[in-house]
Amino acid sequence: MDIIPGGIVAPQGFKTAGVYCGIKRKRNDLALIVSDVEAAAAGVFTTNVVKAPCVVSNQAYLEEGLARAIVVNSGNANACNGDQGFTDAVAMVQHAAEALGVPMRRVLSASTGVIGHKLPMEKIIAGIVDAAGKLHGEECDDTAQAIMTTDTFPKQVAVEFTLDGKTVRLGAIAKGSGMIAPNMATMLGFITTDAAIEQPVLQEMLRRVAWYTFNSITVDGDTSTNDMTLVLANGLAGNKIIDSLESADAREFEKALFSVCLHLAKEIARDGEGATKLVEVTVQNVAVPEHIASAFAANGREISPEHRAGFPRSVAKTIANSPLVKTALFGNDPNWGRILAAAGRAGVNFEPEKVEIALAGTTVYRDGMPTDFNGYVVSEAMKAKEVQILVDFHQAGGETATVWTCDFSYDYVKINAEYHT
Amino acid sequence: MDIIPGGIVAPQGFKTAGVYCGIKRKRNDLALIVSDVEAAAAGVFTTNVVKAPCVVSNQAYLEEGLARAIVVNSGNANACNGDQGFTDAVAMVQHAAEALGVPMRRVLSASTGVIGHKLPMEKIIAGIVDAAGKLHGEECDDTAQAIMTTDTFPKQVAVEFTLDGKTVRLGAIAKGSGMIAPNMATMLGFITTDAAIEQPVLQEMLRRVAWYTFNSITVDGDTSTNDMTLVLANGLAGNKIIDSLESADAREFEKALFSVCLHLAKEIARDGEGATKLVEVTVQNVAVPEHIASAFAANGREISPEHRAGFPRSVAKTIANSPLVKTALFGNDPNWGRILAAAGRAGVNFEPEKVEIALAGTTVYRDGMPTDFNGYVVSEAMKAKEVQILVDFHQAGGETATVWTCDFSYDYVKINAEYHT
Repeated sequence: MDIIPGGIVAPQGFKTAGVYCGIKRKRNDLALIVSDVEAAAAGVFTTNVVKAPCVVSNQAYLEEGLARAIVVNSGNANACNGDQGFTDAVAMVQHAAEALGVPMRRVLSASTGVIGHKLPMEKIIAGIVDAAGKLHGEECDDTAQAIMTTDTFPKQVAVEFTLDGKTVRLGAIAKGSGMIAPNMATMLGFITTDAAIEQPVLQEMLRRVAWYTFNSITVDGDTSTNDMTLVLANGLAGNKIIDSLESADAREFEKALFSVCLHLAKEIARDGEGATKLVEVTVQNVAVPEHIASAFAANGREISPEHRAGFPRSVAKTIANSPLVKTALFGNDPNWGRILAAAGRAGVNFEPEKVEIALAGTTVYRDGMPTDFNGYVVSEAMKAKEVQILVDFHQAGGETATVWTCDFSYDYVKINAEYHT
Repeated sequence: MDIIPGGIVAPQGFKTAGVYCGIKRKRNDLALIVSDVEAAAAGVFTTNVVKAPCVVSNQAYLEEGLARAIVVNSGNANACNGDQGFTDAVAMVQHAAEALGVPMRRVLSASTGVIGHKLPMEKIIAGIVDAAGKLHGEECDDTAQAIMTTDTFPKQVAVEFTLDGKTVRLGAIAKGSGMIAPNMATMLGFITTDAAIEQPVLQEMLRRVAWYTFNSITVDGDTSTNDMTLVLANGLAGNKIIDSLESADAREFEKALFSVCLHLAKEIARDGEGATKLVEVTVQNVAVPEHIASAFAANGREISPEHRAGFPRSVAKTIANSPLVKTALFGNDPNWGRILAAAGRAGVNFEPEKVEIALAGTTVYRDGMPTDFNGYVVSEAMKAKEVQILVDFHQAGGETATVWTCDFSYDYVKINAEYHT
């Protein structure tokens, strides 16, 4: 598998355009992503009870599992706008369908930005017409920029690999945390591929890949109303269609999908609001609690891999979301006590005496007490752009999970307190 | 019920002393609280898997339900110090018992401060001897100060009421969030009363009162390894002993206990690290989810009041812990979208169109969209020292819960990032 340029237009048969239509100040704010032919389409969406119209509409459209295009705007989330919000989301899809000459039910949509402000539909319609006239297949910087809110850099990646003797490409763009107004950390991810793959297989792969990548990052623990990741697979690579999760081709494709999603997920964490560093929290050797294991065994049921990894992941997420841990990371303070205390409130049982904690490569806690580490040395190591926290529960037969986050700086407060809605 | 001076020595038969023994720089750091006679004793403790030796030791001692004294130090949590931590916690109790001439098993202990540093036992022993020689019954400022870490003011209260024709007094002190080193937000509360009350009744009352008061505040969502609230009831008021939760006297006593705990809980939230204001989050009309109600009904079981109130409380806590909500409060930004989105990820289902949100007295969201409130007016109202957030789910037969927190300022980051462990 090789990394290649081109992002979402690296795969055959995809075009895109990102334009400025006037929702944001000066920066691109509207984009189209189009497949020349009908593509298998899959999506994963926010679990927030409050869902934006674009999320609801995409979930309905995806029942057919097919799409030709995605229309997306930034600068306005079109969430919590009552019936008008749904009318506007439908109108956005309708105008994109008309401009592209494709059926409405083949157009997915996404909005990101401030909540509770009505979409400026005239600007959006003009932007859609503009973008439709500018579709191209060279690179996707214009589109990667058009979906940004307070992201500080565009996020894109593409890979090339071989399936069944055919060259297959997979490209993706994503945006992360921060709003111009600003509002919530809204995550969007759009993935294209020319692989031929059956939609149910694609959907299941996206679900489990998202679990280990996009759903394993956190900037501030706040789940947005608009989060979504969509993937379009148009089959133009000509590979034998992937029709099961278990074939060698399926595993190769899932590996590529995992690789691009992981890359973008880490980029989003690295670019979290106010972040000065990327933090990787790995929690390992965490066993499934005995009462849960025996309940499953009694019913003759298998515990799913995500369920198993959910125990270490919830510990890792509690550490990654702790404001005390995140401010210590900002201050380069080797404060292992905050890490251990966060682990202790995650709802997963363990013996503190058996736990081992390593911070930026140095073991700082073991046998129920701190090691005699050199605080100055660890603090210096914490100044790196990427810092690892490793927590080992040393439970037999245990699972491992990794979560990515960023530190918590003055700029986080600045970004979220000083700009008004 | 009247508020009176004296704090924990307002009730008959209690003495205290807070002294400086050299753990912290210049400020009092060691205290004794002593009852002249054996007192019924009850306690509630941290739910963190990682528990400091003082928590473990108190839980064991409280099996007998009796106590004569509490010894407490600040500046060092004596947590995560391996076996030495347990040895030191026992020695602290032993020296207090000797200095006071009471049995070891009647002495409870508490430590608060930095984690993972060994207790300076020589200083502590000298401090215990010093404090034992200075016991007095006039006021308790010295003790309220001796348990502080980065609290900016001491927290104490006392009330007087009548039970069975007898004057009964209840006093309390507490400390909140912030450490000199600093470390975790550690909460300590110590309550004294001269009421006569059976220990199991006292324990159950403390449990449920703590649920609605101390366990309903949050500064940063981080549960400490050392949190505890202890109550000593020595019976010297001479009232007919309270031997059930249901009598008129029991209700009167519980009302007083609730009142002092609520007062101190709000003081702790108000004095949260970096706080500029106290924030009260009330979530109302939240029904018990249908599947849970019917499961209980099918088993002929009652759902406890705390279980019922747990649904609105978990929504309120999610709002109160959201960094996005807290930074908006700091910035006086009427950002109701963040409040609604936090509610939406709390794990409790609702219809967004039926929800109503009021912020600092103004309804800002209703019928699935923002009201046409004046943002400038609401922002001005948010500059008050106490701000209320009211979220109404409008579910029939629903429950209400209130949580207290503070805003999230630059100083929170400063306090927790700039001072090193």
